[in-house]
Amino acid sequence: MRLRNKDMIGLHHSTVEEINLILNTAEAMKGIINRQIKKVPTLRGRTMVTIFYEPSTRTRTSFELAAKYLSADTVGIAAATSSVSKGETLKDTARNIEAMGADVVVLRHPMAGAAALLADTLKASVINAGDGAHEHPSQALLDLYTAREKKGRLEGLKVAIVGDIMHSRVARSGIWGYTKMGATVRLAGPATLIPKDVEKMGATVCANVEQALAGADVVNVLRIQTERQQQGLFPSLREYSRMFCINRERLALAAPDALLMHPGPMNRGIEISPEVADGLQSAITEQVTNGVAVRMALLYLLIGGGAR
Amino acid sequence: MRLRNKDMIGLHHSTVEEINLILNTAEAMKGIINRQIKKVPTLRGRTMVTIFYEPSTRTRTSFELAAKYLSADTVGIAAATSSVSKGETLKDTARNIEAMGADVVVLRHPMAGAAALLADTLKASVINAGDGAHEHPSQALLDLYTAREKKGRLEGLKVAIVGDIMHSRVARSGIWGYTKMGATVRLAGPATLIPKDVEKMGATVCANVEQALAGADVVNVLRIQTERQQQGLFPSLREYSRMFCINRERLALAAPDALLMHPGPMNRGIEISPEVADGLQSAITEQVTNGVAVRMALLYLLIGGGAR
Amino acid sequence: MRLRNKDMIGLHHSTVEEINLILNTAEAMKGIINRQIKKVPTLRGRTMVTIFYEPSTRTRTSFELAAKYLSADTVGIAAATSSVSKGETLKDTARNIEAMGADVVVLRHPMAGAAALLADTLKASVINAGDGAHEHPSQALLDLYTAREKKGRLEGLKVAIVGDIMHSRVARSGIWGYTKMGATVRLAGPATLIPKDVEKMGATVCANVEQALAGADVVNVLRIQTERQQQGLFPSLREYSRMFCINRERLALAAPDALLMHPGPMNRGIEISPEVADGLQSAITEQVTNGVAVRMALLYLLIGGGAR
Repeated sequence: MRLRNKDMIGLHHSTVEEINLILNTAEAMKGIINRQIKKVPTLRGRTMVTIFYEPSTRTRTSFELAAKYLSADTVGIAAATSSVSKGETLKDTARNIEAMGADVVVLRHPMAGAAALLADTLKASVINAGDGAHEHPSQALLDLYTAREKKGRLEGLKVAIVGDIMHSRVARSGIWGYTKMGATVRLAGPATLIPKDVEKMGATVCANVEQALAGADVVNVLRIQTERQQQGLFPSLREYSRMFCINRERLALAAPDALLMHPGPMNRGIEISPEVADGLQSAITEQVTNGVAVRMALLYLLIGGGAR
Repeated sequence: MRLRNKDMIGLHHSTVEEINLILNTAEAMKGIINRQIKKVPTLRGRTMVTIFYEPSTRTRTSFELAAKYLSADTVGIAAATSSVSKGETLKDTARNIEAMGADVVVLRHPMAGAAALLADTLKASVINAGDGAHEHPSQALLDLYTAREKKGRLEGLKVAIVGDIMHSRVARSGIWGYTKMGATVRLAGPATLIPKDVEKMGATVCANVEQALAGADVVNVLRIQTERQQQGLFPSLREYSRMFCINRERLALAAPDALLMHPGPMNRGIEISPEVADGLQSAITEQVTNGVAVRMALLYLLIGGGAR
Repeated sequence: MRLRNKDMIGLHHSTVEEINLILNTAEAMKGIINRQIKKVPTLRGRTMVTIFYEPSTRTRTSFELAAKYLSADTVGIAAATSSVSKGETLKDTARNIEAMGADVVVLRHPMAGAAALLADTLKASVINAGDGAHEHPSQALLDLYTAREKKGRLEGLKVAIVGDIMHSRVARSGIWGYTKMGATVRLAGPATLIPKDVEKMGATVCANVEQALAGADVVNVLRIQTERQQQGLFPSLREYSRMFCINRERLALAAPDALLMHPGPMNRGIEISPEVADGLQSAITEQVTNGVAVRMALLYLLIGGGAR
């Protein structure tokens, strides 16, 4: 079985079979990361170029290491120092990168739809590493991977996603992924930060965080982007923390063996308390390892032996 | 046959035989880029260091990928974050890079003569990736390569170069290269931006862009650096565009099968219109691939099996 | 014999046997740097991540090349563009890097103790590439290596260290290293920039630079960080230069075959005169090569075949 598309833009259009294929492939990849010699020749002579119009050390580094463990060549372009600042269009930049021999372009861009635009322009594969508030599929896939690994299944899981849903591509990709795989998703956050369309995506909006957490098997905490505050969308960090911070008391509302996840970087004490972030239910560090495994799987399936 | 010098500073001092050697070598290298497995062990264990005192994603990335396809190790130094900002001289920086084991240093610097200075200081090879308004030989070589590939020859070609000649190292290297190879070069641009010395280099200055284009086999459009405007050297972008923008009407003055080139990044709608940039006569994307091939050839000839 | 710890935080706690092991290993590594094919498969499949909270092209590049010559994978994180700017703690950043598969983290941080903190947090090895004014062991080790190589021994050498002792991690690591190996260390610098604790470390504070230099076998000149000036700790660069600049006259006070060293980048004409920096007694360029060799040795001993 193979992925139907040359690109990974979002989970919206992925099938259950495709998601299972990626997660199963990631399982094999995780075995490589855990070896002392983390290196296989699978993607030797293939080239991955990352283009990041927003900074993200974590995601970029994860993709870079994923590529290196598979022996691919990598080049990174930070938009601040790139030709972009010389007025070149995104399409022209990407066409040039492809003309240099890139087999896959990993794009982070503030505009929803940017990755899809590139995918249409290029013969090379495109992986969306975050496009505005739209999707961030590799993050959702690593969340799915982690939940499946720890819980043994995705079907029937009760998943709570807590935070600024509106601005979160992580939430959007997560809702598509979890619901497709048969989990139920409950959302909680400041009323001003929950958009109307999420119910159409298959998620349930809860009146408060306690409702969302009640009996949950998986708790996905979103990162609060403190720059939102100035836009008047929520009153203060203190108030946010008081109402939504996932701490020991709140986590106790979930199932006793509930899994706690956060995409990082964490604002400790704001959206998550240190005691639970470092507690026994936390899979936050494991998520990072799984992120590399999932990205190795995507690279392999899109441009390696598993490619169409 | 081999290159006479350990360095590639400019085409001014290159011989016809050397230029042919580089272009022929680049042809073999292009074959590697077009393979699915773009990797040969030719420069394994050799080290290329790029030092860029001016940002240029395109040129730096092109050199980096060229080195990686040949299995060389690469390290990049951006001057903004380098010891340079700590007051170290260029010579000291370069000496240290060499002492760390660099076999070739690729230098971009705002000062004409910087690469030649380094070449005299170091035992390692130096490739000039642009020194002020002086030379940018790998760009001119990729233009020559593209013209030769598409036209089957360089001798006897009529080449038009249009734009800000004065500040263009691309124009200067191009004039040396094209005229040495038997092509004729005609220049057009704002009168304030055409220096006197170009006629001594063997090019012809035209009264207007139409004259330069008439019957041309190759049209090289230069990038307008919008920062020049503030210096009062040309009145406005609108006026520049009106008088010099290469659009469908102007390109029609050239030979019917004339080749259109641009070093990138393009200011679409200013020095070049989108319709011709994306048109059938455009070789702009192909130039980018050829740039990697030419740089692979330079690396191979300077520090590989082809080195003196 | 092996190193006792998984980390290299400073020379304070290193034994004579460990320092000898590192220097002997570095000797073998230097042989690799001097080959035409500078590449051995020793660390294939191991990953080094550099995290630099202060810019340092020289040290970062040296570690990167050391890793590449040993075939390790490398990823660099510059704190300016990292998640750090998103409020993540150093510990969380490092834990994530480790979770991605890093075998060794090379850290530069403005806070004394930062590397030790990481070392306690991580299972991965940590190399301190400078923590505030505390230690910078790989720099001191390359100084020891250079002195031993040129003088044939360390025991009994008279070493002068000149400059801003107070703010210098190079001086601190140097004092520990030289004195452990049986050399005697004499210090000179502005009285306001010599802390009390250095005599307890085994060094002798001299009344003036001439006293420190008299008969010295090795002269270590420190870099003046011109930002200190504004803090009123020394009156002016001109005065500093007049009193402490190591020039031909001052160097003549040392032993006739005294070795001159500087960690770079040099402020020529301030703490060191060009005539001696480029003179016959200068080992400054050689130090840079030895820096790569020492770092290769550390990587090999900490995460390679020589690891515990």
